[in-house]
Amino acid sequence: MTGRLNHGTDGLNSGAWPVSGEHLITPVDSFFTRSHAPVPQIDPASWRLRVDGLVERPAELSLDQLIRSFPKQAIAATMVCAGLRREEFLLLGPLPGELPWGPEPISTGRWSGISLGDLLQAVGISARARYVEFIGLDQVERHGTRFGYGASIDLGKALSGEVLLATELNGEILPPQHGFPVRAVVPGWIGARSVKWLGHINLLEDASQNYFQSQAYRLQRELNPDDPRDVSAGTALTEMPLNSVIVSPGGSDVLPAGRLTVRGWAVGTGGRPLQSMELSPDAGHSWVTARITVPGERWTWSLWEGELTLPRGRHVLAARATDSGSTQPATVGETWNVKGYNNNAWHRVPVIVE
Amino acid sequence: MTGRLNHGTDGLNSGAWPVSGEHLITPVDSFFTRSHAPVPQIDPASWRLRVDGLVERPAELSLDQLIRSFPKQAIAATMVCAGLRREEFLLLGPLPGELPWGPEPISTGRWSGISLGDLLQAVGISARARYVEFIGLDQVERHGTRFGYGASIDLGKALSGEVLLATELNGEILPPQHGFPVRAVVPGWIGARSVKWLGHINLLEDASQNYFQSQAYRLQRELNPDDPRDVSAGTALTEMPLNSVIVSPGGSDVLPAGRLTVRGWAVGTGGRPLQSMELSPDAGHSWVTARITVPGERWTWSLWEGELTLPRGRHVLAARATDSGSTQPATVGETWNVKGYNNNAWHRVPVIVE
Repeated sequence: MTGRLNHGTDGLNSGAWPVSGEHLITPVDSFFTRSHAPVPQIDPASWRLRVDGLVERPAELSLDQLIRSFPKQAIAATMVCAGLRREEFLLLGPLPGELPWGPEPISTGRWSGISLGDLLQAVGISARARYVEFIGLDQVERHGTRFGYGASIDLGKALSGEVLLATELNGEILPPQHGFPVRAVVPGWIGARSVKWLGHINLLEDASQNYFQSQAYRLQRELNPDDPRDVSAGTALTEMPLNSVIVSPGGSDVLPAGRLTVRGWAVGTGGRPLQSMELSPDAGHSWVTARITVPGERWTWSLWEGELTLPRGRHVLAARATDSGSTQPATVGETWNVKGYNNNAWHRVPVIVE
Repeated sequence: MTGRLNHGTDGLNSGAWPVSGEHLITPVDSFFTRSHAPVPQIDPASWRLRVDGLVERPAELSLDQLIRSFPKQAIAATMVCAGLRREEFLLLGPLPGELPWGPEPISTGRWSGISLGDLLQAVGISARARYVEFIGLDQVERHGTRFGYGASIDLGKALSGEVLLATELNGEILPPQHGFPVRAVVPGWIGARSVKWLGHINLLEDASQNYFQSQAYRLQRELNPDDPRDVSAGTALTEMPLNSVIVSPGGSDVLPAGRLTVRGWAVGTGGRPLQSMELSPDAGHSWVTARITVPGERWTWSLWEGELTLPRGRHVLAARATDSGSTQPATVGETWNVKGYNNNAWHRVPVIVE
């Protein structure tokens, strides 16, 4: 069974389910969405991108100017919601107010547009600038105020060449739900920094004060006893961590006894190459090596496959990847944090063999 | 989908799956089995029950003598494997060598036979006797030796009147896989003390030294660093703990949006009555009261039903029962033990609503 998994009825938060483990690039109609406000109606003819703050020559560019002024760049990048696999944290207790995502909010696209670095060099970066803030044209409501969704990245990442202002996804004009006409694409970072419906780029001395940078999407492992949902004392999320998921079989699947092919994806931390992919038939007691069947590009997942032979009964499969820097942690006890972000514990899938 | 879940191919360990949440009494062909050795071939004509140890008049009784000498007694009792829900512990790490049971090794029968207390009074209990040991006619192999599966219960429980030497299950002659011709039935205790294929009753001053009493089926929360599977320093398991399970929907079921009826079973600790049954749509953040639809008898589970209304998306349902003594603990972190017994954390079921 395949389909689209929606959180709620507004279409803002959805993912293809189960996630395809067959193709490196996710078709546009299977791409997950995670938005904090309705998709804004934007007329591309009147759209402008404002670039200001700590720049030498503040600018306002039309879509045509943006596309014509800079060379076209393309990059394949995996987009992942920081809430991926939050559901597994719920075994340790409720996480009120947070969407219980499973492993579905992850997709890989070929993004085309212009390089953020090219644009910043064109407007001139002031000596004091350390951060680049992206602000969307959507209208988020939080605590009685309305504002555009925002995020910031450090200047080093912004100038790395791999950060795009994308106008196309998989060779098509960027669809409305994915940020038409222009979205930031920050490869290797959590999706929340790849701001959609971009309207304003603001260079700053400090990180953005936008709610989604200063108060949400932060990793905090100790509860604030006065406000259990406050993570403003945590660390702002940047790179997506090393992760891997068993896509097939699915949880609670009933399987025939014998040889079983297990498939999934794996991605290293912040663009690091994978060094190994392992699969366990017994919840992590013993491991076999899986093979990479579709190697990814620098900023994407890779797809893998492994074989297990299972006798009748219940089994808990487990998967873990190792990149050039680390191995996935064993349990959600190690990865738990107040708002349930970046869960990358060994992925476990219970199955029944008949 | 319904069927029989087998661990391995020897038929020793199996359960109906999913567990029926419709009937208080489990049909014989759906009853779970959990055995440590093959079913012994027993000729009822030559079978004898030896009763000795700290008794005044050691005896050896034929099946006919046993049945004719004592009044027939009957009791409804839920039998549960101490490994029930061990699978959930595997999220915290592997439990090598232990069967990863889900919620299926539990069944409820109407047992008939004679009262153990009647038999013990007839043979006379020595003043020093404190424990009653049951030894089966099966042949278990452990550490290079063969012996009959054994267990012991304290004399107080043995004389309580509710412990039977059962010859019938649900009005039929006890089937071979359930202990023909005679098994002990110790209501409210873990199934491992209800010894099958009974051949010997031995009264003792101390608890049985049988492997399954002195070295397995013990609750130990600290690992022995010299032998991670050794639980001989733990406490021997007796009563089954308060527990409840969501039988329907099943894990990872895909459901339509709207009103959902959730069904399951619940049982109090050691025969205690249930005081409440609660159901959560959000992993235990909020709770609604479920209703008991089929009240149990003193030593059985009860069946319950509750309604939830779920929007589209992923949800983690949770269930918890409260008896006259306690409420189920929230997480497997609280119930974890070295061999994975008696897990009674809130039962959580992930579902997808389309």
